[in-house]
Amino acid sequence: MTLQPQARCIDTRHDAFVPATEPCPETAAQRGSRRLTLVPKYGDGPREVEVDYAWHGAAGAPTVIVQGGISADRDVSGVAGWWRELADEGAAIDLARCRVLSIDWLDSGQLGVASVSSEDQADALAGLLRSLGIVRAHAFVGSSYGAMVALAFGARYPLQVGRLVLLAGAHRPHPLSTAQRSVQRGIVRLGQASGHVDEALALARQLAITTYRGSAEFGRRFAGAPQSREERFHFPVEDYLEHQGRRFVERFDADRFLALSESIDLHDVAPEQVAVPAALIGFPSDRLVPLADLCELQRRLRGPATLEVIESPYGHDAFLKEPEQLAPLLREAIAL
Amino acid sequence: MTLQPQARCIDTRHDAFVPATEPCPETAAQRGSRRLTLVPKYGDGPREVEVDYAWHGAAGAPTVIVQGGISADRDVSGVAGWWRELADEGAAIDLARCRVLSIDWLDSGQLGVASVSSEDQADALAGLLRSLGIVRAHAFVGSSYGAMVALAFGARYPLQVGRLVLLAGAHRPHPLSTAQRSVQRGIVRLGQASGHVDEALALARQLAITTYRGSAEFGRRFAGAPQSREERFHFPVEDYLEHQGRRFVERFDADRFLALSESIDLHDVAPEQVAVPAALIGFPSDRLVPLADLCELQRRLRGPATLEVIESPYGHDAFLKEPEQLAPLLREAIAL
Repeated sequence: MTLQPQARCIDTRHDAFVPATEPCPETAAQRGSRRLTLVPKYGDGPREVEVDYAWHGAAGAPTVIVQGGISADRDVSGVAGWWRELADEGAAIDLARCRVLSIDWLDSGQLGVASVSSEDQADALAGLLRSLGIVRAHAFVGSSYGAMVALAFGARYPLQVGRLVLLAGAHRPHPLSTAQRSVQRGIVRLGQASGHVDEALALARQLAITTYRGSAEFGRRFAGAPQSREERFHFPVEDYLEHQGRRFVERFDADRFLALSESIDLHDVAPEQVAVPAALIGFPSDRLVPLADLCELQRRLRGPATLEVIESPYGHDAFLKEPEQLAPLLREAIAL
Repeated sequence: MTLQPQARCIDTRHDAFVPATEPCPETAAQRGSRRLTLVPKYGDGPREVEVDYAWHGAAGAPTVIVQGGISADRDVSGVAGWWRELADEGAAIDLARCRVLSIDWLDSGQLGVASVSSEDQADALAGLLRSLGIVRAHAFVGSSYGAMVALAFGARYPLQVGRLVLLAGAHRPHPLSTAQRSVQRGIVRLGQASGHVDEALALARQLAITTYRGSAEFGRRFAGAPQSREERFHFPVEDYLEHQGRRFVERFDADRFLALSESIDLHDVAPEQVAVPAALIGFPSDRLVPLADLCELQRRLRGPATLEVIESPYGHDAFLKEPEQLAPLLREAIAL
């Protein structure tokens, strides 16, 4: 197996290196795919899976794993990147000085199991590092579900990562958040049972959206009178929710949503088993991952751990919406 | 029209007084029904409706209107009463010294309209007072939606009530709470469209339940590992949610739920138009009706207004779950 791709800007799907048709700068993305053998936590033995990854940044530079929430993909940087303001040349995650590695989350279909664990995702990343010839990642930066997987990685592969940077994610989900996700999954299952999958997935996403943003931001943005149209009243917040629901259905699959949503709720890592140094970042307005849970995580981690708190109206979404406040903290935590 | 029923323990449905078969104490309930003419806010003219009411307490004593949330009924006191710990002989709402009057909320089916307003409910209560020969209620105690209706009543019928006691309800809904209710209604409509009404109504109730209780209470009660059964994982909080969902379906109708849920979101009373003295009671852990909204209401009311704050882990449900803390405040606010 090839340890390190020899060319940049290549498609490494199935380990077949295809030269890119476009010239690319030093920091352009490399997308690839590796076939790995994993042993899923809730499975009955080894399983071959295809792990889709992307590399952004300077070849040969230290590797920084970056993983986002369950709906984020490997496109961390670049035009379509979900963290492009923070992962770029000269940015907090400086693509001139590191190489960002990221995977698309595995779901239960790919793993051939009913339930996916955060450990499975960690195993996939560890296997990918090995497959790419990377002995040790400089850092693992995880947000939301990505922070959960980073913790699982830290517990299982302490020698393969130098430090963890954990945003808005903890060692276990909060039971109220589990309740909210349980209802989301119930909606999707009802939609599957009744042949209304798209409407149900959109509604589940609408519900998720109500848990992501801060209460004050909803209050500020969506004050105002309802409008009567199409024989019923429409409230200002509903246009926003419906738009978000529709957009999600266009890019996400119901079974994948069910698997990754459940994976958050199955996540349970004992902080005492994580000795890798960790920098935690949390948001007081985050109702999905209460700051108290990050405080508990910091207190219980075996390795040295810091906790930085950012004031933001954006709740859980602050990891996406506060690049200016996050930048100095990330820069210091990653310590390139 | 009879102004005051002549007998206790009677069924006054359709104004036909039927003697009770059981002897009853002074404070037993009287259930009745009055046909009233209302002009619904979102209708196209006058409409005859049947208003179901109950009286609890001492005949001839001052009238205290008591109304709860959208799922509460006129059974305030007695064995099945939703507020029996606070409305009883010798309790904070002392049935030896007042007579509690309460109605079953009107829904859109009864009113013959697509949408029901909090003003419609206030009109029904005002019409009922008139019909029963009560010139003026001593107080209107409203919780949640009941507080919204009390405010609407205060704005429209300032001479028919001496004081308002408002628990966990404000002059308008918070947009985040509107968002959460909007998703609930979306679930029910999806269930109606797909022929899965009961499952959908149960899911909507599950979602509502996640908004009623405080986050810390969920955390404390439902920590623990999931159990694998019936081919999927079940989380501790799911047993509670599913139980609540099933119970609700047994006693509630989908269309009625849609109408009353929407009625909360349509509620909008200018506090400056309410001159009746008001005592507000709020709970910092209430995520559905943020304390900040009660602060704004108190500041803007035209009449004298106090705001008492009760610490409780029960969130919005604190008005049901904190009788001992509520009792002295209610006693003072009602001032019999």
